[in-house]
Parts: sequence; structure tokens; C-alpha cells
Amino acid sequence: MIAEQTLTDQYLRVRAHSEVICRGLETEDYVVQPIADVSPPKWHLGHTTWFWETFLLAPNVPDYCIFHEDFSFVFNSYYETVGRRVLRTDRGNLSRPTVAGVYEYRAYVDEQMSRFLDTAPISADLLALIQLGLNHEQQHQELLITDIKYILGHNPLFPAVDMPVVEHQAESSNSPVEISEGIYTIGYQGDPAGFCFDNELAPHKVYLNNTVLSGNLVTNGEYIDFIKAGGYQNFRFWLSDGWAWVKANGIQAPLYWYSIEGVWHNYTFDGLTPVDPDGLVCHVSQYEADAYARWKNQRLPTEFEWEAAADQLNWGSRWEWTNSAYLPYPGFSTAEGAVGEYNGKFMSGQIVLRGGSVATPDGHSRPTYRNFFQPDKRWQYTGIRLVKG
Amino acid sequence: MIAEQTLTDQYLRVRAHSEVICRGLETEDYVVQPIADVSPPKWHLGHTTWFWETFLLAPNVPDYCIFHEDFSFVFNSYYETVGRRVLRTDRGNLSRPTVAGVYEYRAYVDEQMSRFLDTAPISADLLALIQLGLNHEQQHQELLITDIKYILGHNPLFPAVDMPVVEHQAESSNSPVEISEGIYTIGYQGDPAGFCFDNELAPHKVYLNNTVLSGNLVTNGEYIDFIKAGGYQNFRFWLSDGWAWVKANGIQAPLYWYSIEGVWHNYTFDGLTPVDPDGLVCHVSQYEADAYARWKNQRLPTEFEWEAAADQLNWGSRWEWTNSAYLPYPGFSTAEGAVGEYNGKFMSGQIVLRGGSVATPDGHSRPTYRNFFQPDKRWQYTGIRLVKG
Amino acid sequence: MIAEQTLTDQYLRVRAHSEVICRGLETEDYVVQPIADVSPPKWHLGHTTWFWETFLLAPNVPDYCIFHEDFSFVFNSYYETVGRRVLRTDRGNLSRPTVAGVYEYRAYVDEQMSRFLDTAPISADLLALIQLGLNHEQQHQELLITDIKYILGHNPLFPAVDMPVVEHQAESSNSPVEISEGIYTIGYQGDPAGFCFDNELAPHKVYLNNTVLSGNLVTNGEYIDFIKAGGYQNFRFWLSDGWAWVKANGIQAPLYWYSIEGVWHNYTFDGLTPVDPDGLVCHVSQYEADAYARWKNQRLPTEFEWEAAADQLNWGSRWEWTNSAYLPYPGFSTAEGAVGEYNGKFMSGQIVLRGGSVATPDGHSRPTYRNFFQPDKRWQYTGIRLVKG
Amino acid sequence: MIAEQTLTDQYLRVRAHSEVICRGLETEDYVVQPIADVSPPKWHLGHTTWFWETFLLAPNVPDYCIFHEDFSFVFNSYYETVGRRVLRTDRGNLSRPTVAGVYEYRAYVDEQMSRFLDTAPISADLLALIQLGLNHEQQHQELLITDIKYILGHNPLFPAVDMPVVEHQAESSNSPVEISEGIYTIGYQGDPAGFCFDNELAPHKVYLNNTVLSGNLVTNGEYIDFIKAGGYQNFRFWLSDGWAWVKANGIQAPLYWYSIEGVWHNYTFDGLTPVDPDGLVCHVSQYEADAYARWKNQRLPTEFEWEAAADQLNWGSRWEWTNSAYLPYPGFSTAEGAVGEYNGKFMSGQIVLRGGSVATPDGHSRPTYRNFFQPDKRWQYTGIRLVKG
Repeated sequence: MIAEQTLTDQYLRVRAHSEVICRGLETEDYVVQPIADVSPPKWHLGHTTWFWETFLLAPNVPDYCIFHEDFSFVFNSYYETVGRRVLRTDRGNLSRPTVAGVYEYRAYVDEQMSRFLDTAPISADLLALIQLGLNHEQQHQELLITDIKYILGHNPLFPAVDMPVVEHQAESSNSPVEISEGIYTIGYQGDPAGFCFDNELAPHKVYLNNTVLSGNLVTNGEYIDFIKAGGYQNFRFWLSDGWAWVKANGIQAPLYWYSIEGVWHNYTFDGLTPVDPDGLVCHVSQYEADAYARWKNQRLPTEFEWEAAADQLNWGSRWEWTNSAYLPYPGFSTAEGAVGEYNGKFMSGQIVLRGGSVATPDGHSRPTYRNFFQPDKRWQYTGIRLVKG
Repeated sequence: MIAEQTLTDQYLRVRAHSEVICRGLETEDYVVQPIADVSPPKWHLGHTTWFWETFLLAPNVPDYCIFHEDFSFVFNSYYETVGRRVLRTDRGNLSRPTVAGVYEYRAYVDEQMSRFLDTAPISADLLALIQLGLNHEQQHQELLITDIKYILGHNPLFPAVDMPVVEHQAESSNSPVEISEGIYTIGYQGDPAGFCFDNELAPHKVYLNNTVLSGNLVTNGEYIDFIKAGGYQNFRFWLSDGWAWVKANGIQAPLYWYSIEGVWHNYTFDGLTPVDPDGLVCHVSQYEADAYARWKNQRLPTEFEWEAAADQLNWGSRWEWTNSAYLPYPGFSTAEGAVGEYNGKFMSGQIVLRGGSVATPDGHSRPTYRNFFQPDKRWQYTGIRLVKG
Repeated sequence: MIAEQTLTDQYLRVRAHSEVICRGLETEDYVVQPIADVSPPKWHLGHTTWFWETFLLAPNVPDYCIFHEDFSFVFNSYYETVGRRVLRTDRGNLSRPTVAGVYEYRAYVDEQMSRFLDTAPISADLLALIQLGLNHEQQHQELLITDIKYILGHNPLFPAVDMPVVEHQAESSNSPVEISEGIYTIGYQGDPAGFCFDNELAPHKVYLNNTVLSGNLVTNGEYIDFIKAGGYQNFRFWLSDGWAWVKANGIQAPLYWYSIEGVWHNYTFDGLTPVDPDGLVCHVSQYEADAYARWKNQRLPTEFEWEAAADQLNWGSRWEWTNSAYLPYPGFSTAEGAVGEYNGKFMSGQIVLRGGSVATPDGHSRPTYRNFFQPDKRWQYTGIRLVKG
Repeated sequence: MIAEQTLTDQYLRVRAHSEVICRGLETEDYVVQPIADVSPPKWHLGHTTWFWETFLLAPNVPDYCIFHEDFSFVFNSYYETVGRRVLRTDRGNLSRPTVAGVYEYRAYVDEQMSRFLDTAPISADLLALIQLGLNHEQQHQELLITDIKYILGHNPLFPAVDMPVVEHQAESSNSPVEISEGIYTIGYQGDPAGFCFDNELAPHKVYLNNTVLSGNLVTNGEYIDFIKAGGYQNFRFWLSDGWAWVKANGIQAPLYWYSIEGVWHNYTFDGLTPVDPDGLVCHVSQYEADAYARWKNQRLPTEFEWEAAADQLNWGSRWEWTNSAYLPYPGFSTAEGAVGEYNGKFMSGQIVLRGGSVATPDGHSRPTYRNFFQPDKRWQYTGIRLVKG
């Protein structure tokens, strides 16, 4: 019975980490939603709990007693198959349930889940669903970190908080990576018992050309050169949509950068500090990444080039913007039901990011993982890798 | 020294009442701002404190030590003469300072104010400023109540809370009040040592015609008749702006009214309960009040008719919409400096309400008081009185 | 039968003047709608014709044949009782019916109207309706002029056109006008057989205080002094709504003013020319008028003060902003049916202007006439008169 | 001298066709701009003329005299390198220059161009620029047709006009087309002296899987089945962005479809007529195309699958939505200067369409041509081809 015991431990370890991320927060920090992209931390804590209750406990535990009938309404997200959704922009108006109430909800569901994992026979389907749930919660752990950063980084007091993230990453010096023209296989081909998201399937062949990827990500110092060279004032470097975005929003620097008496500062979980020129640039949009690359007469990699080179790259500090639209692989198919809705729905208008970041949970990075956001989003730990040719 | 002692007591009593209003709140309830009109309760608590610190303590207490230099930025409001403002719509994104921090701020300022009031000589000018501060805090007490109601009344859990307000008011049966054609004097003429706002001055003569004001405010039951008669579907009853508002916002009933299986319910601080047909209708816009009056072939009173009849009316449960635009009286003048900015700035686009409501602080109602809001606002305790002729 | 003949002449003279206003237009100028407030000239020509067809001909001429069944849809305006409206903002998208088609429509209706007026017995009710129609068309003549000016004044070619308007008005020097405290009668009291709009009724008494109205309107030169003194940069002079308007729209001068190499130019029907400092300032919003007055430590008149002084004032060049909200007079009542909808509907959110302008049709000005627009509107020929006390 | 003579003929033939498209228009039809995507026809006629004047005549004809100095301001488009642009949304407010003036401009430039082409030595670079200009004008010819359709198809009179387009296309019955797994070369490989746009370069290899493309495009009748099956009401068929678009815009059918007493009608240049079930569905967004495909348990082709199969497909009636984002090919590079700005700027947020339509100019279709629009656009002649596997 070691396997089931391990599963319970794994479950509890993942669940506990969500709460570790929040250990430095004040109650008030859990509640607010400054922009639609950023969810209140208490919503993340409740939503991930609702996932376990709705998809694992309710269908599988006889006579399972729902913790609170209104929580499905409050903590549901995009899954249109499961009841009515709270509009994302409304989440920041909900003072109730309280943070304490959400923690009670977590404790209740964790106890029920522990008992269930300890005692119920776990079929292969159930195991897959549990793995999905763990990965879902881990995705929200990264969002918890980035959303908390947004909330605190837009507060005029710029509070420092204890957060299990090492944000500052100095660039080591790595050699460029060449890939040679030919056929490469893309997509998850790992242990069939391992986990991947549906969007990493099916493995398939692509034809790539000779390319050289930079061994290093762009640093803050290099990016400051772009700013000083008038990068944000010259439309020639920008995509049409990107230039419209720069002008409409008055963009002049990466997110969280503030110029104080001529010196660039940035907000991190340590508070507001001068930008380290040796650190890796972070919190840039794909528009900015693309403009920087054009200014350098280079370009961003495709997600296929990146994956083909991944084993030789030093990655994991910043999500790396590619120039690939987020689209289905050949043979992609969507699972039935609400759980299957997720990834396929978003295959329009989004850009793939590859790699992982300092905020990505351990064991949650792999070379085939496809992260995706609209090209104007900056609140994730995003960075820039250049390609020649 | 009795006078100064009394002033300290009066100060502390007003200040304490702001905290009494919040006694039933959870920490989370203090933080959110669901719409721009509604400020987070902790902002009200901080802003009123900032008023005392900025206008009383800082200019008058030698070597006064500001509690926190960033609080002026956070808790300032419309006074453009005092530093840069936080945009009102941003208030709901500020998790810091914490609620506990705001209460510390209040305690610090209250202690400083007590010492100041106990020991400093209070000139007539200072006394006037202190009275203004007390009235300012009382105005925010009413807003605290209405803003808390909005926050909780738009939460899907519809929580009940302990609140020092008796919301339900059954209508007593009062006779209509006639006023006769002739000259009436309007505006504050009370004790010169008493308090009034600048917008109640100067007293002046107006000529009124024969009019009959209803002795009673419109009840929920009467208003339900308007709804049943298709009042919200027929443009003929509505002002052009009102009809545009109805259509753009899909208005079908007063604020906080929800139809549950065909029965009108409304949110009060007791939670969600069926509407009492004998209660006074509440939370209607001036557009709705005007449309109801037209449906009845009557009209709303002017603020002058109301004031002329005030002594014979039974008022104080609902702010009564008039059909008077909020404009300066003859001889109106604005005080110098930031404090003087307030009332005159808003004499455009707003409608006068007269009377007072169940949320109005004691001793803060008088026949000459001019409340004012845009005609689409509904979150105050607003009601309807009709006029014939 | 002289009366009916005269009526036909009067009808044809008014109708012809609408076309005189358009004599300098190119076909293209009739079609566009740069902002929602400004209607395409061909719409004005069609709408006024639709009025005669719908309210006079169709109900009164046996077997009257409608010119085109779709024109009611295209040329109807705010009258919700008569079919479905074309949204005002859509008018500028309608290339058909053509301008030639609209002129054919006018010719058809004019012929039918002439025959009707020449032959039918005209009851008192019909006569009142015809007078309303003539005044309605005259109101649209003023709008035709101001809308054409907006269309051409926002075209980068700034074309000059032949227009029967003398825009430039130098200020004569007139003495201030005093009115003494007391009771005044306001509202139309003229010949009962004469014409007035419903909003000028009923005559009623008001009580006014001692006031002095300037004998002169503000000149361009005086207004330039306000601009030079930083009037548009200092919030202290502005109503809260006005300041928000200045900032949101980047307002820096009256409408049609353009600074060319440091010299203020303005567009008139003569093209783009330097501003004449002796001319009367024109195309200002009420917010600007109010700010100018505050800068001068004066104020705008109420509509009652203006009317009481009208006989002694030199007026008619500019619509004069008052500080009176557009509200019903005591005893105001609305006529039945679609025609009666008009004036009462707009008694919310608008400001009264008094007097008349260089664009106002002859015989269409009287001391009791109440024009009204929202306080941010500037495309009418609006000016500023100041009041002391 | 045959080559140059031919070039002049070719130039004049292309230019004349732009005017043939407009032969059925009234002057008014040239002026309006109902939505930002749709330009006024006179703008297209002026803009294409401005292209020749700015890029060919002005740099190459000694002492060339510009027709009108303000036209560059009025008729420039997205080329930020050439002066200040008129905002696209403002084009519909410009009544001047008149349509007649634009035709004079065309005649002037055509005469200058004829003389230039007849007499000047034409270098290879110049020839390439002339070919670009011809293709540019032809692209605008297709837009002229679709923009005119939008203008007339949103007019309540639904006017029929003479237009050189056969809109109705019945589906012939074609066999499905299989493509086999393997490497294919994509991109323009034709005569180096022939013309292609920069976005068709460079030719490169891609790896494709076994796929079967439908031999036929979806018909109106098939699409009506989708509507009847509740396709627009069921979120399961839709991309997340697509569903948001459906709800925000109340989409219920293809553009130009109107339900009249339960029967689907559509606007064509023949006026408003019942939808032909055998015709090819037209004017659908990529969201609709994708939803239709999901409802059929199929999918849209990639642009590479389409190009690989093109020789076996019957295409040219409808632009066929692919599921490929519009992105640069390997080796893509942008030409220097304003002319080079065009295609690369838009490689973000757009979807590739392949094939051509009934509105595409003769000789302007080729298997490598990449058309592109945002996925919500519907006013082009867009259709649906399905893919299995």
C-alpha cells in the first residue's frame, strides 16, 4: 500500500506549499484584485480546493457533504460546464467568504481527500485526475506568487514580504546553441505513467532550419541600453499591435520599474530597490521582447527551435517568450467534460512561452511544457532569449 | 474650562461612533471597493483621520509628528490643493495599510487631538474648523453605512451584520401639507454659533406657488404597483437621461431588490428577506422617483417647497429626491483654501436631496441641509415624496 | 382667404431658408457625422420634411401617399412614440437616400403642403401645429449651420463656404444693467395667438436680489488673457465636472481655435483666420464660461436675472450660458402624443442658454426663449455675460 | 520599347479597374465609414493614387509638382515613416476633398505616370516598385468591393448596385484531397521576375502529417443546420475568445444575414434576397469557421496543409480561414523604408487565409499568397473548408 500512502503525502505536500506561499501576507492582501488578470490570493486558495471537491470528492465519495453550497459559485472559474461563473473582474469585490473561512474550507477538503486517498482504490483514471489536480494547484501556486507581487508592487507603500522565491538571477555566461537543419520530434514522449498536459500531445515531427540560440537571457543592463537608445519612442522596432499598446498605455519600461531621480528601481519581494544591471530582465511583454530583438537585428525563437535546443540551454529562471502562436499540435484532442475544456479553449490569440521561472514549482518544469499568455501580459516572470538566422 | 472639556468629549464621541459602525465587519469587509462611488470602509476611517491631522494638528501643534508620511497620499480625497490624490477607483486595490494600521492611526490622532483640545486655546476660527471636521466625519459615517451595505449586499452570501441602523420604516399616516403662494425665506438662519455648511447660505427669499406635498413617503407596496404596471418598460414615464440609464443598465427594480421565484426580496443588514409592502421604498434613483411621480400624474417637490413645508412634514427616514439642481444660493461664497473647495465644486450635474435618513447621524439633520448626488445614484437611503400642483 | 395664403407663403419662406443655408455645400458635405451631436445636413433636411409629412399631411390629407415608406425609419429622431428610431450615431453611415433624393422628398412634401394650406380649412389646433412645425424647422436651421461648421471646421482643408451668417461681432460698449430686489414675472406672456414653446410656460413669479449684469459679452481678447493667465491649467477656477472635462479632453481653448506658430487662429465660414481680439468669444462650454467668471471673481447670471434684464440688454449675437439648470416652470405640462414629448424629456442634466445667436433665424428670438444644452457642448454660438453680486 | 509600352498599358488597365468597381456608386456612397475596418471608397481611390505619387513620381520625376500638398495628410495610411497619418476612424468624417476632386487627382497622376512609364528608363528596382504598386492597388480593389458591400449592406434601403462580382457560387462536387506524411516546400518559388509579397518568402521545408482536406467548401444550407442545432448558443463549440465575441456582439448568423419572418435573407449587390442553401457560406469569422468545424468533429486546415494540397483543390471563390497564425517564414526579412514596413508589422494577432475570392482581382491569386485578418473579421468573402485527422 506504499503507492497510496505516497500519493497522500504528495497531495499534502503540494497543498501545503500553496499556504507556504501566503505565509507572509496580511489578511487584507488576500482580498484585492487590482486588474482582471490578477486574482485575489484567497480566490486561488479557494478555487484549487473547489477543484478537488468538485472533480474528486463529490463524484467519488459516497454521501460526500459539500462544505458550503455557495462556494461553487464563488470559486468556480472558466469551466462553463460547471454552473454559473463569477465574472473574473468581480472576484476583487467579494469580502466574504473570509480568509479564515477559506482556510477552514481547505482543511476540510484536505481531511476528506486524505481519507479518500488513504482508503479508496485508485484506478488509473482517478490517478490521472489526481495528477491533473496536483498540476492544476501547482499552476495556481505560480499565479499566487505573481498575483501577490502585482498587488504589493502596485501599493504605494511597496511592502516587503517573506516569499519562497529567489527573484534575482545573475546571468552566467553560456555558449550559443546551434541547431542544424532537419527533422525534429516535438511534444511529450516521456514515461506514459508520467504527467503532461493535453496541449503537449501528440508528439510529431517538424522541420527546422539552421539556427543559433543565444546561450544567455537578456540582462537588465542590456535592456536599459534599449531604453536609452529610444526603444520605446521608435515605432520601427515594434509590431503594429505592440506599438498601439505602447502608446495606449504609456509604456516606458518593464513592469515594476520606476524611475526615481533618474535611477531605475524595481519592486521585488524585498521592496523597492535599484535595478541590478547584471540581473536577468523580467516582466516584459512579448511586444517588448520582440522589439528588443529587432533593435538587435535578431529575433525570438519559435517554440520548436526552443524545444529542439532545450537540452543544451540553461533555462528555468524566466519564462521565455517565443514567436509561436499557441495552437494545437497535430493529433491534439480534448478530453470530455469540464476538466477537458481547459487548454484547447485558449488556442487563439495567445503566445507560447517555454522554460519556467523562479516562481515555477519544483518538478513542474519540462522541455515540452507549453505556457501561454497574450502578448501584452507582463506580470509573469518573463524574459528574453535571442536567435540569429 | 468646561467648554474645552465638552469639545473633547464631543470629538471623542463622534470619533467613536465611526468605529461603532464598523463593529460587525470582518477585516476583509474593510478593503474592497465594488464600484467607484463606494469607498472601502478602511479608507473612510483613514480619510477622516487624515482630515484632523492635516487641517488641525499639523498647522496648530508645534513639532507635530506626522503618523506616516505616505498616508496623506493614500487617504487624501478630492482636495486638489493638498498633494496628489489617489484616484478614487484605485482605493479598492490597496491592501496596505492594514485595517489594524488604520486603527493605530486613529488612536494616535485621537490622542493628539484630545491633548490639543484639552490644552490649546480654541479661537473662533479653530472652533469653526473643528465643527467642520466633526460634520465631515459624520457625513462619512453615513457613507460608511451605505458603502458597507453595498459591499455586503452585492456579495452572493448576503451576510447579515450588526449595524446601528433601523432600516425598516413603516409609513405612518400623515396628512398632506399645503403651502400657500407667496414669499418664503430659504437657507440657514439658526444660531450663528451653530453649524451649517456653506451651501446653506446665504438666507434669501424665494417666491412659491400653491402646492400640496404628500404627508407620506411612497411605500414598497406602492412601488411594486409601478413595477407591475410596466413602469420600467414604458419610456413615456421617463426623462430622456433616465430612460437611457434604464436601458443601459437593465434596471428593473430598486437597488438591492432581487426577484426570487416571483417574490421581491431585498438585502438589508439582516440579510436577504422578502420586501415588506408597508415599508418605505428605498434605494431609488432620482430618475426612478421622477418616473414614479409621472406615472402618478404628480411630480417631485423643489427643494424650496420642501424647506417651506419642512416643519409640518414627518421626515428623516429617507433622503427625499427633489427636482432641484444643486446650485449656489444668491450670495454663496467659497472659503479660502482646501477646506473651502468642497461644496462649491460640485454645483454641476447634481440634484438636491432633503431631509435625512435612518443612516444619518444624530444631530446632523436640519431643515436647511442640502444633500446632493447625481440623479442615477441609488446607494444612499433615498425615497420618494410626491407633490400635486 | 388671405390668412391661408399668408400661411402658405410663410411655410414656403421657412422651407426655402433651410435650402439657402445649404447652397454652398458639396454633396459630400451633406453626408458625414463627425460626432454624435452633429447630424448630417441631409438628415436635417429629411427630418424636418418627415415632420410635416408625419404630423400634418398623413393625418389630415385624405388618401395621402407617403413619399417613401422607409424614410420614417431613416428620418425619425427622438420621438419614441413614432416607430423605431435610427440611433443618432448611425446617421453618418447612411449614404442613401441620396442628397438628390432628399431634395425630391422636400419638393414633394412642399407641393403637398402648399396644396393643403391653400385649400384645407385650418382649425386653431392645426394652426398651432403648423406654427410648431415652422419653429421646429427653424430650430433645425440653426443646427444646420452649427453642424455644417463642425463638419468643415474639422476638415484639414478648412474650406470656406457661402453661408448666410455674419459670424464676426465686435462688441459695442454698453452700460451695465442693474436689477433691483423684488418680485418678477417670468415666462411667455405675449399674444396668445403668438407662438412659444411649452417650456416657456406658465408665467410665474420669482424673487430676485440686487444684481448687476455686464452690458457687454466677453471678447476674444479678454478670453485670451484668461488663457495666458493659465486658466486651463488651474483647477481652482473649475467646477469638478468641468475640470474632469478639461483633463479628459485636453481642452486648451474654445472650439475651432488652433494655435499656429503662437498665434490663435479660428475657423469660420471664411476659412481659417487669426482670432480678432475685438470679436465676441464664441464656442465655449458652460464649464469654460463658469471658469472664466470665477477667474474674474464674478459669476454667470441665472436665467431669471437674464430675463428680468433682457429689455435693457443688447443681446442676440451669442447664446448666453446661464447658471440655471433646465427645469420645468411651475405649472408646466406636456402636450399629449409624440409632438408633446419633446421639451419635457430633456429637463435633466442640461443648462439654460438665453438670448440668441448670429445663427438664430429671424423672428425666432424672444426674451422668454429657453435654449438648453449639456454644459460641455460648444458647437453652438455660445458666449459669456458676467454678473456681479 | 514593347516592354515599357506594355507596362503603361498594364498600369492603366489596373487603374481603370478601380474606377470600374465604383461605376455604380452615388457620390454619397464614396464618403461614409460605418466602422473602422471599412474605409470610404474615395479614400481607397485617393490612397492608391497617393502611393504612386509619393513612391514613384516624387522621387523619380524631376521637378514633379505635387497635386495638392494636403493630400498626403489625408490619403496616407499606416506608413509611419511618411508624415503624420489621419486616424483610420476619422476617414469617414472628411467630406473634402470631394469625389470629383479625387478623380481629378487620379487623372493627374495617371497622366504623369503614363508619361513617366512611356519615357523614363525603368530599372529593375523601379520595375519591382511598380509591380508592388500594381499589387497594392489590386489589394485595395478587393477592399473597395468589400467596403462598398458593408456600406450598402448596412443601409436600411439595401440598395442594389452594378458591381463586377459574381457573388453567388454554387458548390460543385469535388473529391476530398489527401496529403501524405512527409516534407513539403512552402513559399513562393515561381519566376524570379514574377511578383510575390515579402511574406511569401523565403521558400522553406515543413513536415506535414497524413491529412484529408474536404474537396468542397461549406454551403449555406450546411451552415443553417449548424444554426438550427444551436451552434451559437452552445459554448462547447467555441474558442474562449470566440465565445466572448459571440456574447459581446450578439452574433447569431453570418454577416449580412437577416431573419425575416423566419427565413434567412442576405444582402448581396443584388439587394436583400433569400439565402440560397446551395451557395457557399460567406462572411463568417474564423471563430465561426472553427466552431462549425468542431461541431462537425473536424478542424480547419493549417496554411501549410492548404498550400501542399492547393493544386488538387478547387479554390478561388472564398478566402479560406486556416488555423495558422500569421507569422514570418524562416528567412523572412523586411525591405528598407516605408514600403517595406507593411507586411511584417502585422505579424501578431492575425490569422492566415488562403485561396482567393470572387472579389479578388484577376491574376492576383496564387497558391502561396497569404492573406491575413484578425479572427473576428467577417466583411471579406470568407468561407470554410474542413479537414479530417
